[in-house]
Amino acid sequence: MSDLPIPVDLLPVPLEQSYRLMNHGPTVLVSAEHAGRANVMAAAWACVLDFGAEPKVSVVLDKATLTRELIEASGLFALQLPTVAMAQLTVGVGTDSAREVPDKLARHGVELFRLPGVATPMVAGCAAWLACRLRPEPHNQAAYDLFIGDVVGAWADGRVFQRGRWQFDTAPDTMRTIHHVAGGQFLVTGRVLQA
Amino acid sequence: MSDLPIPVDLLPVPLEQSYRLMNHGPTVLVSAEHAGRANVMAAAWACVLDFGAEPKVSVVLDKATLTRELIEASGLFALQLPTVAMAQLTVGVGTDSAREVPDKLARHGVELFRLPGVATPMVAGCAAWLACRLRPEPHNQAAYDLFIGDVVGAWADGRVFQRGRWQFDTAPDTMRTIHHVAGGQFLVTGRVLQA
Repeated sequence: MSDLPIPVDLLPVPLEQSYRLMNHGPTVLVSAEHAGRANVMAAAWACVLDFGAEPKVSVVLDKATLTRELIEASGLFALQLPTVAMAQLTVGVGTDSAREVPDKLARHGVELFRLPGVATPMVAGCAAWLACRLRPEPHNQAAYDLFIGDVVGAWADGRVFQRGRWQFDTAPDTMRTIHHVAGGQFLVTGRVLQA
Repeated sequence: MSDLPIPVDLLPVPLEQSYRLMNHGPTVLVSAEHAGRANVMAAAWACVLDFGAEPKVSVVLDKATLTRELIEASGLFALQLPTVAMAQLTVGVGTDSAREVPDKLARHGVELFRLPGVATPMVAGCAAWLACRLRPEPHNQAAYDLFIGDVVGAWADGRVFQRGRWQFDTAPDTMRTIHHVAGGQFLVTGRVLQA
């Protein structure tokens, strides 16, 4: 997996701007790895929790998921934003569990890559990526399935995020981010509105 | 305020479907009232926390806000989804504090209304409304400004949400929900995509 190429247009995003990647509330893919086993799941309930120099995110992870187990074991995870082109992949990894479908990632066309210095493998083709370190909160995890992470690195595809802003209006429509409603129905991120 | 008319197209949404109102991650207005004083603020960091018969939401509320004080005192709040037509209002109530601008609501054109049996006043013109009861979590509130609420009632404007689904594609564009990025820039909720 470490030989997979890094996406060509991958652009580092300053930590202070990383909240802008998730501020519009898109559905995310959650990736994690422990002891050589990697997995990816989908999560619509992910949110910015803090910005500034020490940004944080929250994400709800069902107790049944293998990804949650990998995060609890490794203390690390990544959130990444799938695009319109990845809607089917997102439903696939959000429906199948690696516990019952061992080849889940291959079956749904998930390609992982690894950035230098980042332990968590990430999903190729996304619009943006946030590497996170779990902040252990046993009560939240047990009572609400709520996981909090410190964002330790952020990147975006330079075709859709540049100079601290999303550039969806000038990028291909297939690169827009997506917001799950229910049952495989998404709302696509739409036009820019300056108030 | 109790004499204000209830919006004509207001439709009750079953609690089991209430998560669908926020699943796409829009920016919300947070309203609260205590001892006869009401306030409204904007929050981009609001998220579904649970669905089913006992749905929950989370929302991040800065310590400086009056709305947070009203919620801590009353134990109640409402989340509601502003529309494209309300983008300027949303920036206004998200920027001014009622501590320094006592006529903040009037200044930004906020009209409140009250539903029978719901103590928290709500903002007219929104696409959907969720009445919530605070679930006291002192550690989350102090450490992360994170507030958790049980959803106790949900309503939508029947022109944009019907039969458990958003109907943005057939409603006026001005009724779409909005997702704040930064500095008054929003991304408008876009088209439907069925994967």
